Amino acid sequence: MDHSDWVKSNLKDLARSLGFRYTPLEEIEGRLKRLRIGMEKKEIEALLVVQKMDYYYLSGTTQDGLLFVPSEGAPLLMSRRELERARVESPLDVVVEMNSTRDLASLINTHRGRLPQHLGLELDLLPVKDYFRYQDLFQGVRLIDASPILRNIRRIKSPFEIDLMRRAGEIGKKVYEEGRKILREGMTEIEFAGILEAIAKAQGHEGLLRVRSLNYEAYTWHVLSGPNGGIVSQSDSPMGGLGLSPAFPVGASLKKMRAHEPILVDFGTCYHGYQVDETRMFCIGKIGRKFVDAYNACREIHDAVLEEARPGADCEAIFMKTLHLAARLGYKESYLGPPGLQTHFIAHGIGLELNELPFLARGQSYPLEEGMTFAVEPKIVFPGEGSAGIENTVVLGEKGCEVLTPLGQEIFEV
Amino acid sequence: MDHSDWVKSNLKDLARSLGFRYTPLEEIEGRLKRLRIGMEKKEIEALLVVQKMDYYYLSGTTQDGLLFVPSEGAPLLMSRRELERARVESPLDVVVEMNSTRDLASLINTHRGRLPQHLGLELDLLPVKDYFRYQDLFQGVRLIDASPILRNIRRIKSPFEIDLMRRAGEIGKKVYEEGRKILREGMTEIEFAGILEAIAKAQGHEGLLRVRSLNYEAYTWHVLSGPNGGIVSQSDSPMGGLGLSPAFPVGASLKKMRAHEPILVDFGTCYHGYQVDETRMFCIGKIGRKFVDAYNACREIHDAVLEEARPGADCEAIFMKTLHLAARLGYKESYLGPPGLQTHFIAHGIGLELNELPFLARGQSYPLEEGMTFAVEPKIVFPGEGSAGIENTVVLGEKGCEVLTPLGQEIFEV
Repeated sequence: MDHSDWVKSNLKDLARSLGFRYTPLEEIEGRLKRLRIGMEKKEIEALLVVQKMDYYYLSGTTQDGLLFVPSEGAPLLMSRRELERARVESPLDVVVEMNSTRDLASLINTHRGRLPQHLGLELDLLPVKDYFRYQDLFQGVRLIDASPILRNIRRIKSPFEIDLMRRAGEIGKKVYEEGRKILREGMTEIEFAGILEAIAKAQGHEGLLRVRSLNYEAYTWHVLSGPNGGIVSQSDSPMGGLGLSPAFPVGASLKKMRAHEPILVDFGTCYHGYQVDETRMFCIGKIGRKFVDAYNACREIHDAVLEEARPGADCEAIFMKTLHLAARLGYKESYLGPPGLQTHFIAHGIGLELNELPFLARGQSYPLEEGMTFAVEPKIVFPGEGSAGIENTVVLGEKGCEVLTPLGQEIFEV
Repeated sequence: MDHSDWVKSNLKDLARSLGFRYTPLEEIEGRLKRLRIGMEKKEIEALLVVQKMDYYYLSGTTQDGLLFVPSEGAPLLMSRRELERARVESPLDVVVEMNSTRDLASLINTHRGRLPQHLGLELDLLPVKDYFRYQDLFQGVRLIDASPILRNIRRIKSPFEIDLMRRAGEIGKKVYEEGRKILREGMTEIEFAGILEAIAKAQGHEGLLRVRSLNYEAYTWHVLSGPNGGIVSQSDSPMGGLGLSPAFPVGASLKKMRAHEPILVDFGTCYHGYQVDETRMFCIGKIGRKFVDAYNACREIHDAVLEEARPGADCEAIFMKTLHLAARLGYKESYLGPPGLQTHFIAHGIGLELNELPFLARGQSYPLEEGMTFAVEPKIVFPGEGSAGIENTVVLGEKGCEVLTPLGQEIFEV
């Protein structure tokens, strides 16, 4: 059977029957409208979207290709592989085949009659080698960094996006609830983490978490028990854990978990590309007083952030308030990491990537807005002993936060 | 307790007791020696290594930082986070703290007395924005693409590296053997895939597979049953599967697996950063004749490649021979994908990344060499019906291939 024919006749129905939700045209149109306002401000005549999540956001597909968005007129989706599937997945009108990047300029010319004079690119991620190639293909065209515009429009989530995140939150809830039943003494951190991941996958969790960065790798298996919770590692996180090797020195290790140790589980769930992030504490048997107190302090800080978070509230100011609160609670030296290694954020924007706007952080003075989604994660770290923390992902409404990761907030003693 | 003190006193012993293997100094020295031969040829006076796997390869750590390698004298590892841990993990002598990228030039100046005139960078991956920053920090310095040199030295694996890959192969073997016991009718593709992943993780598999690319994402959950095995998707693979959503349109889906369907499982295992890749066929009950025949053809092609692979053999020539063999066996139209969508490689180099040299592929005319490691993966695809295939990772010795993924080669009927 011909592959194209099969895809045209069968793919959409099959995929829908197995839970696929396609991005509606109106959704894409709303995003394009906001994008074009940003483009106009920066005098960018057209955008060439290369990076997978920006491309998905504006086209509805992640089939390999490039997306050309002029300031006026129809966007042009140029598909490398697989064309028919891109046509099924994207609601955009114009989806053409691109056999080689060499054809890029001529495809754009054919579509639009001329090349733009100012072309926006995602220079925060685009490899230099590709940039040189585009310079060559678009001689005389000014290439401009459009990544701030893309990051900026993506900061506000639509009801469609929030709904996908809500579903991710439901999967996460199941992960923790099942996890409570499964955890037992002698299990290794990574064994437990692998089972949590398997539970999530069976519910439609996509397994890969995404970060906008060359080197930063996200992962779900952040299960840190006892002293391992007190180890800082490569990531911009209060604690990194031991990990499995010098090549992956973060997250769960082959350490066996023992009774009465604090066990911190930070699990990110991904549904249709949209992520939520949450953290809870587990313990096999009774947890010690020190960690109960630290956990309660984290809850108090967490609740204070949710209380303060309103449209118009300043992101940096909220972060600074948590520093004062942590100090007042007696955790000045351990809040967000050990002395000298403390991180400088209490919440990170989240959606298609784990490091979206806003950051409730030092140096990030701008207002919160309705439709922003972020993960609030106060953590307290004691080197040599372990860590405590809680995390929820929320969406900001007119009157305050809705928690997208609903789940009991007690320490899960099993 | 102070974090640095704790790391200095405890980390190495703890990590070793939990299976960590650190890269020995002699190993790094051998790599640096080969690197410098390549640098000399290209007249690169020094290298600034940014990308995580190149950085790990040359330093032994993946703690966040930058590695400066002059053509003569000691390399300089500049650590952002976490310094003490980088000192434990890397056998390099000079490991210093870098608080900000702004300090880069002065750290190099302090270490070496002067800046290089020609500086190599990984321009195949380095983001444009970072390149502009380096241009600014190193005014008057010529910035050159050093990625071909790095990719080139990494193509030949040392006994130390091969040993890590062998261990990855043992983990993979356990995954398939356990998988045979667990697979049952009515399980979804992703449920089965999640369990396989959990089995691997419990053995020390690191969960993330790595590809040298901006957008290409690798994953372990490539379980394709029945018609899903006939679907091509975004990846440069004979078949991609349905996946879970338009955001992740490859690999396992929520489809339930049924008796007598071909089930193709392509699982990559990662140990200490080193990956092996293997594929086997499963079936619940008896598999149909068509897929037995196609699988036997894949085995014949696989065996022919292993037979031809000798130091000095031409990579493209081996690929071309498989095209003739596939045609002779009656699979001209289905070998490596459906008509118009066929891929052009029969094997890909593998190690820290899944797309290393060599490629046994169209347009890749160069000799195989002793110490190369690659995954040989003949696949046959029938749109609307499914696919068949086998894959093993091998290392090339003086006299031929050693299979690093030893495992029964029959179809696993359960």
